[in-house]
Amino acid sequence: MPQQLSIGLFGFGSVGSGIYHVLKKKPSPEIQLKTIVVKNKDKPRSIDSSQFSYAAEDILEDEDINVVLELIDDADAAFHIVKQALIQKKHVVSANKKMLAEHFEELITLAQKQNVSLLYEAAVCGSIPVIRTLEESFGYDALTALKSISNGTSNYVLTRLFQNPQPFEEIITDAQNHGFAESDPTLDIDGWDTKFKLILKNYHGFGVLHAPEDILNLGIRHVKPEDIEFAREKDLSIKLIGHSRMEDRRLETYVAPQFIPTSEAITGIDFENNAVQIDAEFAHQHLLQGKGAGSIPTASAVLSDLVSLLKGYAYPYSKVRKGIPEPESQTPEVVFDPEKLIKVYISSYAREDLEPFRFKERILCGTQKQLQYKIGKLTLDHLKEQVKHSNAEVFIAVFPD
Amino acid sequence: MPQQLSIGLFGFGSVGSGIYHVLKKKPSPEIQLKTIVVKNKDKPRSIDSSQFSYAAEDILEDEDINVVLELIDDADAAFHIVKQALIQKKHVVSANKKMLAEHFEELITLAQKQNVSLLYEAAVCGSIPVIRTLEESFGYDALTALKSISNGTSNYVLTRLFQNPQPFEEIITDAQNHGFAESDPTLDIDGWDTKFKLILKNYHGFGVLHAPEDILNLGIRHVKPEDIEFAREKDLSIKLIGHSRMEDRRLETYVAPQFIPTSEAITGIDFENNAVQIDAEFAHQHLLQGKGAGSIPTASAVLSDLVSLLKGYAYPYSKVRKGIPEPESQTPEVVFDPEKLIKVYISSYAREDLEPFRFKERILCGTQKQLQYKIGKLTLDHLKEQVKHSNAEVFIAVFPD
Repeated sequence: MPQQLSIGLFGFGSVGSGIYHVLKKKPSPEIQLKTIVVKNKDKPRSIDSSQFSYAAEDILEDEDINVVLELIDDADAAFHIVKQALIQKKHVVSANKKMLAEHFEELITLAQKQNVSLLYEAAVCGSIPVIRTLEESFGYDALTALKSISNGTSNYVLTRLFQNPQPFEEIITDAQNHGFAESDPTLDIDGWDTKFKLILKNYHGFGVLHAPEDILNLGIRHVKPEDIEFAREKDLSIKLIGHSRMEDRRLETYVAPQFIPTSEAITGIDFENNAVQIDAEFAHQHLLQGKGAGSIPTASAVLSDLVSLLKGYAYPYSKVRKGIPEPESQTPEVVFDPEKLIKVYISSYAREDLEPFRFKERILCGTQKQLQYKIGKLTLDHLKEQVKHSNAEVFIAVFPD
Repeated sequence: MPQQLSIGLFGFGSVGSGIYHVLKKKPSPEIQLKTIVVKNKDKPRSIDSSQFSYAAEDILEDEDINVVLELIDDADAAFHIVKQALIQKKHVVSANKKMLAEHFEELITLAQKQNVSLLYEAAVCGSIPVIRTLEESFGYDALTALKSISNGTSNYVLTRLFQNPQPFEEIITDAQNHGFAESDPTLDIDGWDTKFKLILKNYHGFGVLHAPEDILNLGIRHVKPEDIEFAREKDLSIKLIGHSRMEDRRLETYVAPQFIPTSEAITGIDFENNAVQIDAEFAHQHLLQGKGAGSIPTASAVLSDLVSLLKGYAYPYSKVRKGIPEPESQTPEVVFDPEKLIKVYISSYAREDLEPFRFKERILCGTQKQLQYKIGKLTLDHLKEQVKHSNAEVFIAVFPD
């Protein structure tokens, strides 16, 4: 267990600079920021350029440095850094959900082999202690479901749309102007970011690991003002949800917008806030909510991981190694239930866009002003298949039973 | 770290029998319930009497038993049991907040001296992982406030009153008939239970320990239908809150009903549900909500502590030992700010009941139908003093600034 953390920080974006400023405001004798490596020499930054190095080796080959904070955007470069850091027997704290989701097993195995910790609380829902809670609480309980609002940008956009239904393009431009959406918002609004976080939660919560390509992610890009009106008339909200449900030892999991009755607490999570709803067999339902993003709250989560390192903490991966505490239990099957039907709503301005989508059980067709919609049930596999072959601007959302 | 838990269980009430049934439904090779001790031989119980012992020694002097689960009502008897168990170097899991709050320092010190764990997640807000989160998350952050709805009975009563304003006596009788209130509801509705839980949270969250008699607890016994109407007209809710706020290294803490704007998420916590709102300097505001009571959810929290024992977990009391991570920090002062004013609402049907209460700053007098009320500011010390000398049936609640 390290008595003292000598830190090499990669990246000086929103979170990296947040860390710097928190450590400056509230220094700790046990936590010393030794070296900051950034890529771009010419980018203007909030602190003097003499504080930066530009070569990864300045951290990775410095034997004094025992902790690497990986806080860069580029997931491929991040993977290379984290892998090298682990090989050099340095502890790693990362907030890069894409990198982690894509290389989860390799990195966890490597960290265990090297006997160092790889912590990443900040990668999932910012400062809400999700990973820690999934690991260390409800320890005797079997989780039955996880439902998360984990992408601040999408939730901000949906909240604004419910305040004032308007075309998606307008709201995303506005969100970009206010700094709540990236110039390329694809990862956020198409559900990729939510999916990467879902993969991490499923591993800690259920002991099940998926590759990103195995999980369907539907986003909010094609939501229209009439979809919002339709929801409001029925006392429903629409939230982009990372969804998992364990039934009969099978995990149903996907990312999709969901219509949710406004009586459910999770629909109260607005703007850039995040929440995770945890259902367990005995403990019933819990909701953890808080700041899912932002420079300083995310920095707080990273720093909390550093304090955990000082206590010698490493994730036990208790659901993975030991399964749930039943004698017969092993890691549950990683498959979807191929027969399980989910109820979805599909809408478009053009009726022909809806035609390629075939339900196993047709429930309802309707219109909302200019909008055509239909509601029916089909298997998740069929939905994935049909989404893959559709180029149309349809909005697809899971509908409550 | 024990490889195997051999358990002695004291008490077979709601939580104790919940544990029994969960372990029966989902047995674990590492967790064996060896002996159950109950007090009353003649009480009818859900399982055969051959399963019970009646002498504490059957657990305390059994060298095979390495864990004591203390789940009895009587706080004095519980203290004796827990103390003896620790002296015998047995780990202890307890859900008895009154016993813990009254003997906290002695028991923690004893457990540390004996090198065993004393865990009590189930004592605070049932299955919501509050203590663990306060210990292990936001580790670099200084908490600035805690606000909890931690008594299910009071919250159930208040929720019902807001659905249908009616005299308090009627609602409490109804709650008793439905099993949501004890035959003597004093501990719940007068804020004692909330206070014991607040003491535990303050220790884990701020490193500050109070004796129960040093904290003011105001309850909901004298709330009237007109108070509820007054709140509703102003878009306020009334919740019984365990309140702590750290400012300038001083902790302001009390238990009192609070008028809270309905826009705040914590006002959505209804019926027997519990919630803890955690504010931290960098992580901002979080809300953890879930089942705060009930046989099976509380049993889930106790069993989660047992799983933690198998991992060798003991609370690090990190806020107490190390203070917040500032070089100059020590355990903060345990005093209230004697000059700090809080804004309160005081009401009664009889104007003369209000007269003994003197404000430092008078803000408003008014009536709501037959009800007289006044709103003003005074120090917490003055309020405590005036409450002590008043025998009247006044309802006192903290009012938002």
